[in-house]
Amino acid sequence: MALASTANSALDFGPASALSCRECGTRYDLGPIFACIECFGPLEVAYDFGPVTREEIAAGPTNIWRYSKLLPVPGNVETRPNLQPGWTKLVKADNLAGELGLRSLYIKDDSGNPTHSFKDRVVAIALEAARNFGFHTLSCSSTGNLAGAVGAAAARAGLDSCVFIPSNLEEAKITMASVYGGRLVAIDGTYDEVNRFCSELIGDELGEKWGFVNVNLRPYYAEGSKTLAYEIAEQLGWRIPDQIVIPVASGSQLTKIDKGFRELIKLGLVEDKPYKIFGAQAEGCSPVSSAYKAGHDVVQPVKPDTIAKSLAIGNPADGPYVLDIARRTGGAVEDVNDREVVDAIRLLARTEGIFAETAGGVTVGVLRKLTESGALDPEAETVVLNTGDGLKTLDAVAAEARPAAVIRPSLAAFRTAFAN
Amino acid sequence: MALASTANSALDFGPASALSCRECGTRYDLGPIFACIECFGPLEVAYDFGPVTREEIAAGPTNIWRYSKLLPVPGNVETRPNLQPGWTKLVKADNLAGELGLRSLYIKDDSGNPTHSFKDRVVAIALEAARNFGFHTLSCSSTGNLAGAVGAAAARAGLDSCVFIPSNLEEAKITMASVYGGRLVAIDGTYDEVNRFCSELIGDELGEKWGFVNVNLRPYYAEGSKTLAYEIAEQLGWRIPDQIVIPVASGSQLTKIDKGFRELIKLGLVEDKPYKIFGAQAEGCSPVSSAYKAGHDVVQPVKPDTIAKSLAIGNPADGPYVLDIARRTGGAVEDVNDREVVDAIRLLARTEGIFAETAGGVTVGVLRKLTESGALDPEAETVVLNTGDGLKTLDAVAAEARPAAVIRPSLAAFRTAFAN
Repeated sequence: MALASTANSALDFGPASALSCRECGTRYDLGPIFACIECFGPLEVAYDFGPVTREEIAAGPTNIWRYSKLLPVPGNVETRPNLQPGWTKLVKADNLAGELGLRSLYIKDDSGNPTHSFKDRVVAIALEAARNFGFHTLSCSSTGNLAGAVGAAAARAGLDSCVFIPSNLEEAKITMASVYGGRLVAIDGTYDEVNRFCSELIGDELGEKWGFVNVNLRPYYAEGSKTLAYEIAEQLGWRIPDQIVIPVASGSQLTKIDKGFRELIKLGLVEDKPYKIFGAQAEGCSPVSSAYKAGHDVVQPVKPDTIAKSLAIGNPADGPYVLDIARRTGGAVEDVNDREVVDAIRLLARTEGIFAETAGGVTVGVLRKLTESGALDPEAETVVLNTGDGLKTLDAVAAEARPAAVIRPSLAAFRTAFAN
Repeated sequence: MALASTANSALDFGPASALSCRECGTRYDLGPIFACIECFGPLEVAYDFGPVTREEIAAGPTNIWRYSKLLPVPGNVETRPNLQPGWTKLVKADNLAGELGLRSLYIKDDSGNPTHSFKDRVVAIALEAARNFGFHTLSCSSTGNLAGAVGAAAARAGLDSCVFIPSNLEEAKITMASVYGGRLVAIDGTYDEVNRFCSELIGDELGEKWGFVNVNLRPYYAEGSKTLAYEIAEQLGWRIPDQIVIPVASGSQLTKIDKGFRELIKLGLVEDKPYKIFGAQAEGCSPVSSAYKAGHDVVQPVKPDTIAKSLAIGNPADGPYVLDIARRTGGAVEDVNDREVVDAIRLLARTEGIFAETAGGVTVGVLRKLTESGALDPEAETVVLNTGDGLKTLDAVAAEARPAAVIRPSLAAFRTAFAN
């Protein structure tokens, strides 16, 4: 039974049937809403899935639309202008596994997305919701990656964009976010302040007809992260890994990967088996990790201070759900300091030729820490996520990643520099 | 008949049967050689192709190895650690086409490669040659993109690397090239001086057992660019486009795309039809464009001065072949100035959500110029290449791609900044 009747027969969200409150289960018709009016809990997309086969999926496009029957998007989504994110590489990381003493390790490398972060996945779903609701402007609050993803997606789709960022972001992310021609607004404040400002804007006439991908379109947007779970399972040969290490910013991605795995099991696309989910944070913004270690169910907000700016969300909306999933699956939430983040970026680059942004340094650093502490089983099949690109956070390694020498173009100069 | 007998039965180059002089046709056994001892002409790979079908290719991996039967690589190349480049998106660019007045335009977006430039393609082939010849170090002279591609490929493959760059490169490219843990050597000099130095090093005992991907492995390396032709044709539904705009640095890429198209025709994988190839240079390094316009067959070297550093090769080895192909196919070679490069980067970003490096600004700028001049047929199916990523050449647009405003997080501040 749908409580708020915003039903519109022109809407086409494919298999999505309603929004459902994660806390109290109240159902709503599909609309640009994100919080339960009964209990203020977050809303998420509920589905009536039809039959889906592995063969059908394998015959689909090499992007997230191969899973369109599992997402809140119309059946013809492929034919509409969008960035076609996803189907990024799952890299068998034997060199890194060898260094860490793991038997079987894979890196899901989402730096291969169009704007080089996993955000292209979630924005692509939000874009379809914006089209459904007739919004003309795509908007967001962002720690950087999302700003670029929204700007690029809006450009391809022919929508306006207006994105809001904290003014202290990395230069690369600022330039990238504004090059697509939309409006970029820098806010003197933390990400959490930017986020609160966006919520205000939605209530104002200024924000009418605006789709804030991570606010009023959040239920749809968040579903995009399920595609990480689908791809990992399919790329492993339709199998869920034993252990997976996922970065935690708002926590949404981790909860949706868990949701994706459970859907695959329910649909009979993979075998039902246990898996452990581990969350990774930076020490300078580790409210969820702190709560996990203290045995708490609630998350105490913090003021972020870390080089991992894409994870610098001090008041993570899905923190409690992350705690629940880590505990339920037998995983954990751990954090690493900025020095360990830089070391992990360099370790990953040196062993696998993958240049990750600081968020990837956090997950690989936590992978190392959890392996050393024995929390991860070295014999179990393990996946670690890299959700962004090192080119966007060059400052983290620039001081250390320098030429070995600057010489004149002569053999003599080369000999002098490198003969010992 | 093979002239220089370096035959080694342990070598496995798949369908490649020999090296052949592009000038005089003298044939050599496959080896780490690059110039004809008869006439000093460049050597290229000759093949004995077996039967290849579209179906077989379509069933292959979603990277360049789907074409392994058309490349100088062993049949099991897929199973060896490498970056798995290729199968990048061919984007139907309706927004850009609309702005330029073209009927049917596609962008082959090679920023989607693992290190975000087309160089991953050529390095992957050179890596297999290095393995075949037992080299322990992968090396190159580079204008930046190649340095990153070699560093990353060597890291994944477990080889050492030592790469040489001009010391004035973009910071992003320097950091990226050194983060993979190999040895990065900056040379006080132009790319052409770096290149000459590498040739010296190969003749020296210091460079023994080194595979310089673009010098002693160049015949193999260059073949990697054929995969751009294969992918474009396959992604168009096994059809060669009517017109294609390709950047010209050394000119190798353009000549190999032409070779790739001709192979597809010869193998019966596409229909035989005419196509026009257009070369694109930056005005500040336009020796091939100048020769084309002057009606010359030879290319006069220049000292580069352009923001398009990845194309800044003043003495392009394959320049004469580019001239020949442009003239034979009814194409042209054109150049644009730095201002037009920046405008084209922003045009592409604004219309299609693709953030190209300066080389992509050169091709899109030349596309625009050739359309306006009438040299390109607006009714014909057209492909333009973007070979690199805007994150590596941020300086080109950083001054112009800025936030529209910096404000405090309040509706009042937003209204003040953006009212009317």
